[in-house]
Amino acid sequence: MGREFPVAGHVVRFDTHPEPIAVPAGTLIGDAARQAGIEIRQPCGGQGRCGRCAVRVESGSVRRRSILRLSKADLDAGYALACQTLIEGDVIVSVPPPEQIERRMTTEHTAPEVEVPAGYNAAYVQTIQRATVEMSPPSMDDQTDDWQRLLTALRVECGVDRLNASLDQLRDLGATLRDNEWKVSVTFDTTCEPPCLISVGPATETAMHGLAVDIGTTTVTVWLVDLLSGKVIAQASDYNKQIARGEDVISRIIYAGKNDGGEELRTLVLESINTQTRAVCEHAGIEPATIVKATVSGNSTMTHLLLGLPPQSIRLEPFVTAINHPPLLCAAEVGLEIHPHGRVDVLPGVASYVGADITAGVLSTGMRKSDEVTLFIDVGTNGEIVLGSSEWLVTCACSAGPAFEGAGVLHGMRADRGAIEEVWIDGDTHEPTFQVIGGGKARGFCGSGLISLVAEMFLTGVVDKSGHFNQTLVTPRVRIRRNGPEYVVCWADDSVTGEDLAITRTDIDNLLRAKAAIYAGFSLLADSVGVDLASVDRVLIGGAFGKYINVEKAIEIGLLPDMDWSRFQFLGNTSVKGAYLSLLDREARAAVAQIASAMTYLELSADNSFYDAFTSALFLPHTDLSRFPTVTAAMTT
Amino acid sequence: MGREFPVAGHVVRFDTHPEPIAVPAGTLIGDAARQAGIEIRQPCGGQGRCGRCAVRVESGSVRRRSILRLSKADLDAGYALACQTLIEGDVIVSVPPPEQIERRMTTEHTAPEVEVPAGYNAAYVQTIQRATVEMSPPSMDDQTDDWQRLLTALRVECGVDRLNASLDQLRDLGATLRDNEWKVSVTFDTTCEPPCLISVGPATETAMHGLAVDIGTTTVTVWLVDLLSGKVIAQASDYNKQIARGEDVISRIIYAGKNDGGEELRTLVLESINTQTRAVCEHAGIEPATIVKATVSGNSTMTHLLLGLPPQSIRLEPFVTAINHPPLLCAAEVGLEIHPHGRVDVLPGVASYVGADITAGVLSTGMRKSDEVTLFIDVGTNGEIVLGSSEWLVTCACSAGPAFEGAGVLHGMRADRGAIEEVWIDGDTHEPTFQVIGGGKARGFCGSGLISLVAEMFLTGVVDKSGHFNQTLVTPRVRIRRNGPEYVVCWADDSVTGEDLAITRTDIDNLLRAKAAIYAGFSLLADSVGVDLASVDRVLIGGAFGKYINVEKAIEIGLLPDMDWSRFQFLGNTSVKGAYLSLLDREARAAVAQIASAMTYLELSADNSFYDAFTSALFLPHTDLSRFPTVTAAMTT
Repeated sequence: MGREFPVAGHVVRFDTHPEPIAVPAGTLIGDAARQAGIEIRQPCGGQGRCGRCAVRVESGSVRRRSILRLSKADLDAGYALACQTLIEGDVIVSVPPPEQIERRMTTEHTAPEVEVPAGYNAAYVQTIQRATVEMSPPSMDDQTDDWQRLLTALRVECGVDRLNASLDQLRDLGATLRDNEWKVSVTFDTTCEPPCLISVGPATETAMHGLAVDIGTTTVTVWLVDLLSGKVIAQASDYNKQIARGEDVISRIIYAGKNDGGEELRTLVLESINTQTRAVCEHAGIEPATIVKATVSGNSTMTHLLLGLPPQSIRLEPFVTAINHPPLLCAAEVGLEIHPHGRVDVLPGVASYVGADITAGVLSTGMRKSDEVTLFIDVGTNGEIVLGSSEWLVTCACSAGPAFEGAGVLHGMRADRGAIEEVWIDGDTHEPTFQVIGGGKARGFCGSGLISLVAEMFLTGVVDKSGHFNQTLVTPRVRIRRNGPEYVVCWADDSVTGEDLAITRTDIDNLLRAKAAIYAGFSLLADSVGVDLASVDRVLIGGAFGKYINVEKAIEIGLLPDMDWSRFQFLGNTSVKGAYLSLLDREARAAVAQIASAMTYLELSADNSFYDAFTSALFLPHTDLSRFPTVTAAMTT
Repeated sequence: MGREFPVAGHVVRFDTHPEPIAVPAGTLIGDAARQAGIEIRQPCGGQGRCGRCAVRVESGSVRRRSILRLSKADLDAGYALACQTLIEGDVIVSVPPPEQIERRMTTEHTAPEVEVPAGYNAAYVQTIQRATVEMSPPSMDDQTDDWQRLLTALRVECGVDRLNASLDQLRDLGATLRDNEWKVSVTFDTTCEPPCLISVGPATETAMHGLAVDIGTTTVTVWLVDLLSGKVIAQASDYNKQIARGEDVISRIIYAGKNDGGEELRTLVLESINTQTRAVCEHAGIEPATIVKATVSGNSTMTHLLLGLPPQSIRLEPFVTAINHPPLLCAAEVGLEIHPHGRVDVLPGVASYVGADITAGVLSTGMRKSDEVTLFIDVGTNGEIVLGSSEWLVTCACSAGPAFEGAGVLHGMRADRGAIEEVWIDGDTHEPTFQVIGGGKARGFCGSGLISLVAEMFLTGVVDKSGHFNQTLVTPRVRIRRNGPEYVVCWADDSVTGEDLAITRTDIDNLLRAKAAIYAGFSLLADSVGVDLASVDRVLIGGAFGKYINVEKAIEIGLLPDMDWSRFQFLGNTSVKGAYLSLLDREARAAVAQIASAMTYLELSADNSFYDAFTSALFLPHTDLSRFPTVTAAMTT
């Protein structure tokens, strides 16, 4: 309206701003927004790497210099990176609210909320059954003993005619039957044959809970499940208290072999589980005694230590376990503080280094039901890898160390409130921007934050491909301390602990070894069955990295193979999910055993080629850059 | 030779004497022997009641005034009672040595030595199986876990492919396999399905023992069995230490209901069994840990107390047990000090007052394999009675009290060394003669001694049919003491304890009540199924009366029905024998369960007629003398 626009200029309208603005042709959308007074976040400093500045071009002509981080669907919908997109005509641009960007960037690739399996019906699919039975009281005409009276009623009610009971349970039976006037609720586990009695209680008893437990070398996770609805009603996760006795399974095994080390480790993991069990029970407002079953997953060393089985042979060639398929046990026998006669089902494993966490993980991925060739990578303290489909399964394990779980890293932590979960570094100033779980001050780095940080440091030249610091940079962020060079992400003022949060050379070495072990593992596994990684249909990633694992950055550091992002899916803790499914559903439980039997285990330590592959992968992203074309491209932008 | 013989005199030659003697016609053989200087024992004072003076008339004519105690076979062989047989011609008489008489008098009617069942072969009939298995050690080509490796070897060796093991056992497995270089001996129990692992040990391990245990209310009996040969290698028997907490099951049940009474009784019976187990092991020179199974019999109250099951409902109408068929248990769980994973098989019972002691007893009698109608009477603190054949079985119980086990009687004791086991009283002098187990000084009376004593006192008029003392007798043996009248059998000089051993009026009342309860029991049981006692083919008597139970005297006091002696058989402790058979042979074990199911239980307490029958039987031998024709005859001689 009477205002003049320069020649070769274009009109830009932002949906969040009342007035259109004029810019010269070739202006970046980001600069245009700034001119209009609109703040668009550019955590990576406008280098087109973080994807957080995505906007939607509603109409008009633009040129995208980079489409990193945008999927085909994003492009079809008109998304463009504000920092990388040039205005080449009059355009209308909408700026999504930041949380919408976050959601778009992460939800596809992170763990979905736990969903109750479709069609779940406790009465039909549960391993745990509960029946209400009413008996005629004994009389001079019917002097049947208490136990037989109960069994007869149970047979009439639900066809069960044998039931294993312990002496303790038989001792309590008579009083329970009489106190409840011969009408009781009977809970039993049908996983074994004959089924095991868990409890006899008042017929009014309705609550029935279960635990899905994942014992990681570093992290123990407990889910409290309402067995009637199938819903997960509370979750807890914390470090495995054993961690003070060694960070990886090998040091734990060595510790277990000394004096009472095994018993000490058993007590520590029990404390870890029992503490979290109390926490979830308090949170949900239930009594631990209503928990009638715990389904436990974990690597073979962890399950051995939990059960007090000697783990020594796991460590020594030829690396065998004491038992891969533990029997169904009693909570009191194991030491879990749930119903004392609750059952403890430790899921079956395959080998010393491919445990129940992996069989449960494979179950939870559903890969056994798919014809697609799937690569499943579980990144924990050990990296376990499974390749296969409905037809075949091969597996191997490699020792990654706990770096991705935040342990073995100076300021590492689990993916809890206060963890830095994503970092961007400005390519010019080398100033970082970061995102903290739960907002507020930072406390340390979780796995996804470390992956993100290392990728950014590499791409912005803070470290070179060997992880060596570039000490010529003019920034107070890179400095030398007693233990060598480090990069400060968060100054003391913004940290909860009041100290600078930095990543050190040692931390980076640990992360490189971890990612190299995993990369070498799946490469060799694919080689062993003659499958080209490029022909893998899906890559499913399990592990407790944190909520917002970033595929791009995981590829950039060479942790994941360089392939189209749409083939990746992050599943979170697949082990506890598999335990959850096995807890709920007897067919799922049978499937885990079937998976354990079906897997072919490749022993990497028997193979010199592992060492070679590992060494080659100890670089960012890899010594062989031809394996990482998109990263190579990003390095040259 | 030149010697003259008086007219109407006869020549008598004794085989033990060089010279013939001449006696007048009508001389008793006993008097002739005395004349020849030959000592023939006449413990009953020559009244023809004890049978100990039996001699054999090789040739010549005699007249037997009484043939009591002599069987048809005895008579056919020429036996005659020296005190009752008149010489009526020239005779040749042989005098058997006393021990030969004892054997003839007792062996037919007392417990035979324990015989290993014919055709016993541990490998085929045992519930316990032991296999030696050799495995290939694990290698990089075979990383099978320890437990599966053992199971696979076991399947190859003996077709067993599932085995239940406890966590403890799995914890020890790896070290055992490696210490024994993958060649081990595996012991398991096949009574349950799947079988239970008992032990894994060196392949050189050969000894394998079992226990047969009978827990009586008064007496606990333990047999140590070599499971390979099937032989009983040591026996022990002693009072149940619970006896200090009540003499019968009812007082025990009441005691168990007070504070920690149940736990105290459990501990006491465990101590009883464990003490005897140590004793038999020491005697046989074996380690208790080589005992891999204990098969336990006992009445229902005893098995409940052993297992810590509350016995209260046994005592209260409608008299039901907690459990009649206990599951197979683990020794450590029960508290038996044998191999900690040894199995404890508590045999099945029928009802509150017909327990495993009776099902085991019926098994040991073999009556289920016979078409004859058999009456089986087990005389313990409770009297349990079974009537039946291969086709049918009925049973009942009556409370006899512990008198026949030597408890509840002033100088009562178990049938051990020093026990007076048989008594004869001279009908004229009322002086007693008695026989002591093991010889030497006397300590007290065992069950058979008491039966014998009461019968003699009755027949010689020391007491009347109500058990009242005849205080007019001129003998120092009958006297009054603080607690009333008593009869002294053994003066202090001949007693180990240095005190007179007498039987009191209270003792006699207890014995009368005990025998009346048993007599009433089997009479009513026979009535209930319309069987006339006279038509019963066999009467089998179990119980720990002592070694030389005397049928005649048991009939004389009215404990047993008055019928031909040849129909009676004394079997000793049938309960421990049944446990022994069930321990050895899985078919026998199955038969016990089948017997428990087949028995029809008659509840006497539901029946007023019991009280009437009991009251009528509270006399010697009974109010209705027509039921005891031979006793009536003896009373009039």
